Amino acid sequence: MSLVVIGTVAFDAIETPFGKTDKIVGGAATYASLAASYFYQKVKIVGVVGDDFHNEDIADFKKHGIDVEGLQIKEGEKSFFWAGKYHNDMNSRDTLITELNVLADFDPIIPESYQDCQYLLLGNLTPQIQQTTINRLRNRPKLIVLDTMNFWMDVAMDDLLQTIKMVDVLTINDAESRQLSGEYSLVKAANKILKMGPKYLIIKKGEHGALLFHEDLIFSAPALPLAEVFDPTGAGDTFAGGFIGYLAKVGTVNFANMKNAIIYGSALASFCVEKFGTEKIKNLTDKEVADRVQQFVNLSSFIIEQ
Amino acid sequence: MSLVVIGTVAFDAIETPFGKTDKIVGGAATYASLAASYFYQKVKIVGVVGDDFHNEDIADFKKHGIDVEGLQIKEGEKSFFWAGKYHNDMNSRDTLITELNVLADFDPIIPESYQDCQYLLLGNLTPQIQQTTINRLRNRPKLIVLDTMNFWMDVAMDDLLQTIKMVDVLTINDAESRQLSGEYSLVKAANKILKMGPKYLIIKKGEHGALLFHEDLIFSAPALPLAEVFDPTGAGDTFAGGFIGYLAKVGTVNFANMKNAIIYGSALASFCVEKFGTEKIKNLTDKEVADRVQQFVNLSSFIIEQ
Repeated sequence: MSLVVIGTVAFDAIETPFGKTDKIVGGAATYASLAASYFYQKVKIVGVVGDDFHNEDIADFKKHGIDVEGLQIKEGEKSFFWAGKYHNDMNSRDTLITELNVLADFDPIIPESYQDCQYLLLGNLTPQIQQTTINRLRNRPKLIVLDTMNFWMDVAMDDLLQTIKMVDVLTINDAESRQLSGEYSLVKAANKILKMGPKYLIIKKGEHGALLFHEDLIFSAPALPLAEVFDPTGAGDTFAGGFIGYLAKVGTVNFANMKNAIIYGSALASFCVEKFGTEKIKNLTDKEVADRVQQFVNLSSFIIEQ
Repeated sequence: MSLVVIGTVAFDAIETPFGKTDKIVGGAATYASLAASYFYQKVKIVGVVGDDFHNEDIADFKKHGIDVEGLQIKEGEKSFFWAGKYHNDMNSRDTLITELNVLADFDPIIPESYQDCQYLLLGNLTPQIQQTTINRLRNRPKLIVLDTMNFWMDVAMDDLLQTIKMVDVLTINDAESRQLSGEYSLVKAANKILKMGPKYLIIKKGEHGALLFHEDLIFSAPALPLAEVFDPTGAGDTFAGGFIGYLAKVGTVNFANMKNAIIYGSALASFCVEKFGTEKIKNLTDKEVADRVQQFVNLSSFIIEQ
């Protein structure tokens, strides 16, 4: 039994209204696997980096018990690099640089030891690679979660639709839900998207929380109001990692557990944005996580007896 | 003991992506008093209309047990008229016409029978009239709720700040919180605004719900995801009316009751947007309201045992 996370492992250079960084470690699989590791012990990563990726960066994965056998290191090549700048509202950003490098011909090799995968997180990547990953697992995992973004809707919609058909949970943001469905109302959007294949849809709304849709059920999760959002990079990946990590821990996939998984994912994401890159989510204690989850409980609970 | 609502009583002409209306009855006090009447029996309205306001419109108030002694009818004059058009996202709108008419020299006369006011809702109006209303009540009400909007921040900030100082609860939206405080983060904005006088701040976020701030406590209330939003006009007024109406009913002002009041206010507001104008909130049954509140409970409850 294991939780496999596939996605980018990369360098980011980030500018926000509060500061900027040089190249720091980022990538969907980085954030997601770190987040998942707080809840589940057998997290295994699939990705590719260049030889510019440092040993200490890989050591960070190992410290969290993350299996890196599936992380290919391409000698003489460079890691994927992304540079972006956030606007004041932190909900929109401009991409300044995208250098695909090793990602350009990434072939996701699944080590034999990963074939026990029960929980699969397809982090943000080309839909084709996400699909190949599913196909290379001999047994279909118990739960497949797909995270994607508007970019793939723009350039690879057919591939994306095919991949979406194969998964259990899709996580996208509100604008992406509208783009994917052609519906403005998120309820109508969700109804359409649930007909495309996934049994569960999570619509991420950043500072406004998240919505979970399943059949005719809806769950609205709050976001923690924060005084400072230093850097939203990786928050969605962290959310997805915390979400599937919690589900892997509890071992039963149902609506009630999914609701809690969203709270745990949101709690991890709320830490992520407090510092640049993975700085905060690399160094959390279990108590910090538990306290943060309790904040979500306090934030949103009310008692109405009718 | 009574709940006094002051605000506009008006005609609106509304255009949304889903349709448009001729002149229909609107105004902050109209929506708010109707909403409050579902929870509290002694709702009294203060406002002004022209002789173009029809008897059947006033009859609607009376049918809801709303006291209209404080609703002045100016012979030979016309009621306040507003025409607006909503954009696709329903969160922004253009004002097409504003005819102040009777509102231009509105003097809020408080009938003697209103002096038992314990709960006062200052619906959206000039801050000066809101302040005059407070001053004309011989005994300070137990709870004063102030609803306002960006327009008054633009044209009458000093008056508004003076009025804000005198109230217990301020309800504004997220953009207005940012404008009033000069802070982008809603947490920072709330901290600043709570220093301006009110003990409670409610930040309305439309389809994203609402936040309640009090000392170092925060409550995040969900909004009901709706397939169709026909017309957002009056949703904020309806929210405020439902909110204070519920508090008047339970009779004790504390954070726990305020949380529930926000849910009840949100439930009423979720009905308001389903049809044009007051059409929906004029004709609700207690069962409909109770069922809708239950939807809010189901929507946002989760159980985490750590």
